[in-house]
Amino acid sequence: SRPFRIAVLPGDGIGKEVMPEGLKVLKTAADKFGLNLEYRHFEWASCDYYAQTGQMMPDDWKSHLQDCDAIYFGAVGWPAIVPDHTSLYGSLLKFRREFDQYINLRPVRLFDGVPCPLANRKAGDIDFFVVRENTEGEYSAVGGKMFEGTDREIVLQESIFTRIGCDRVLRFAFEMASRRARKHLTIATKSNGIAISMPYWDERAAEIGKEYPGVTTDKQHIDILSARFVLTPDRFDVVVASNLFGDILSDLGPACTGTIGLAPSANLNPDRKFPSLFEPVHGSAPDIAGKNIANPIAMIWSGALMLDYLGRGLTGAAQKPYLDAHDAIVKAIEDVLVQGPHTPDLGGKASTSQIGDALSKVL
Amino acid sequence: SRPFRIAVLPGDGIGKEVMPEGLKVLKTAADKFGLNLEYRHFEWASCDYYAQTGQMMPDDWKSHLQDCDAIYFGAVGWPAIVPDHTSLYGSLLKFRREFDQYINLRPVRLFDGVPCPLANRKAGDIDFFVVRENTEGEYSAVGGKMFEGTDREIVLQESIFTRIGCDRVLRFAFEMASRRARKHLTIATKSNGIAISMPYWDERAAEIGKEYPGVTTDKQHIDILSARFVLTPDRFDVVVASNLFGDILSDLGPACTGTIGLAPSANLNPDRKFPSLFEPVHGSAPDIAGKNIANPIAMIWSGALMLDYLGRGLTGAAQKPYLDAHDAIVKAIEDVLVQGPHTPDLGGKASTSQIGDALSKVL
Ligand SMILES: CC(C)[C@H](C(=O)O)[C@@H](O)C(=O)O
Ligand SMILES: CC(C)[C@H](C(=O)O)[C@@H](O)C(=O)O
Repeated sequence: SRPFRIAVLPGDGIGKEVMPEGLKVLKTAADKFGLNLEYRHFEWASCDYYAQTGQMMPDDWKSHLQDCDAIYFGAVGWPAIVPDHTSLYGSLLKFRREFDQYINLRPVRLFDGVPCPLANRKAGDIDFFVVRENTEGEYSAVGGKMFEGTDREIVLQESIFTRIGCDRVLRFAFEMASRRARKHLTIATKSNGIAISMPYWDERAAEIGKEYPGVTTDKQHIDILSARFVLTPDRFDVVVASNLFGDILSDLGPACTGTIGLAPSANLNPDRKFPSLFEPVHGSAPDIAGKNIANPIAMIWSGALMLDYLGRGLTGAAQKPYLDAHDAIVKAIEDVLVQGPHTPDLGGKASTSQIGDALSKVL
Repeated sequence: SRPFRIAVLPGDGIGKEVMPEGLKVLKTAADKFGLNLEYRHFEWASCDYYAQTGQMMPDDWKSHLQDCDAIYFGAVGWPAIVPDHTSLYGSLLKFRREFDQYINLRPVRLFDGVPCPLANRKAGDIDFFVVRENTEGEYSAVGGKMFEGTDREIVLQESIFTRIGCDRVLRFAFEMASRRARKHLTIATKSNGIAISMPYWDERAAEIGKEYPGVTTDKQHIDILSARFVLTPDRFDVVVASNLFGDILSDLGPACTGTIGLAPSANLNPDRKFPSLFEPVHGSAPDIAGKNIANPIAMIWSGALMLDYLGRGLTGAAQKPYLDAHDAIVKAIEDVLVQGPHTPDLGGKASTSQIGDALSKVL
């Protein structure tokens, strides 16, 4: 069978430093598990490229990525030369929309060896997924301003929820919950305050839920749900949320486990019509870029999620070597987090590349 | 001078149990500090009233409350007989809007004697305020549905930000920060994802900030800001946020200090054209109602905030006995949290009324 085609976009800042470590571990895994991966490297989707050309990507960017199975993405942004809005809308957010990556999947896990900001929690206690809608909802550029410059000035911002958009993310989350041991889905909402879109979201969740009688659910308003991420993070299994609420919960979750610098993220087009994108949650971190001290674990873990996706997906038949490679990389991360070496963010002195080496070695 | 007029609305469930304790402590404080308070008691704004009359409040509710200085509010909601939407929109949310209580002020404090879900934090470390916009923004009933019942079904929900609405809450927050020791204001936003309303919010914050050169500010996106409530809660002084973001942060903050059951809230109309409302953050808690075990501290602390407001406010001349009474009640809460007695939520066996007695005694 043909190799899986992976587009490699390191992006900016520490993206360029963690990417080689991600590729290093993928190469070790490919050798060990007999994976068939083929790479295409691109230097665009970066502020460097913008500085040279005045745009984040070439006009024909789509044709380069379209027939890839996955995009392995470092981090984008360099506010000193390009406003965040320009760099994000010109790359990452464009991919999410134009490749219809309607699922943003983020694991929340507590590891031994990582200081946890919550008291009395140990590895194993916290292990859940946030499933975020990634294309519509509260993130829209629709709206406008009226009575500009006067006391009557008013700004309208539209949130847009479509039945298709709601149903597919809800179905993905129910499907995922139905395959897990606890089979529990938490539905984030705010239908007691946001009077039109959120009751609709609840309605669609109830409707899709009928297809999954084996999944138990609870519906929680985002205010108390955020509180419960701190108070009872052990209770969650799969949490599904709109674009904005998912954005908040998928930063808050890793904060609660002390893994905000380690967290990976998958931007999926589960229909596999377009490439899916795998990226660390952390950004380009201009403050520590160029020092070879960035922790590459989020990049490496994102690579593991990519293998899992390539080998499984909701529709395709499972390819065991890919799933095994995912599990082995996550296991290697667990081991290295306990035994070291550690980069400075975890109190160690190791360099970025030493972590990649250590992980490849225990794999 | 005339007494301050306070409307007393116990509401539902534990609201009816904690209210007498709130009034008990206020009476003790009034005797001790020579406060001039006058009460008007109402049984409406409750689901009991709804069960009898089919509405949450009498038609002439406004005329009863309009000339009060403050509303002391228990908790509303009894989902078994009235849907939350009906009970909330028919009372609490109506007061906030019709009395233009555009500030929702919520202290976040860590106390000795209260188990903190965060590791390695001690009383004094966490002590800040969330200032929430309370009338507009993401909470609106404007929008609608189209192509109903088809695959094209789409729901639009409007967020509405007015210049007046933004400026007054921002100014209140800057003013408040300017009077505190650290003089720091954190501005919650999400202008990197929500493309129209949030950049406008940022713009207004920058504009109002010019009036307060002595206040330092930082602007944080809501995702990372939520994370920082968990990671570095000691860094905050005053946090200002839109209606939705403020709702989230003012539950998340107390969750981080373990005080979600103790947290008070002030819904202010700082112009004093309308009564302000003081209420516990907790709800009516049907599961523990009727057992005399609810912790009345949130109600009592809300009463202290009410005295502070009556005695100070942004415009009126300060009346020291009221401010002193506020400080004394908060101090009494601190003492009782350390030495007990405690209600079951804090691991004790005391009843609701025993807490009120204990607090009155140490006052
Ligand atoms: C009950 C609900 C509508 C309300 C809100 O979101 O404002 C509550 O969460 C609060 O914070 O007072
Ligand atoms: C950078 C920003 C627009 C983005 C988002 O809000 O989606 C980021 O926070 C994320 O979660 O990937």
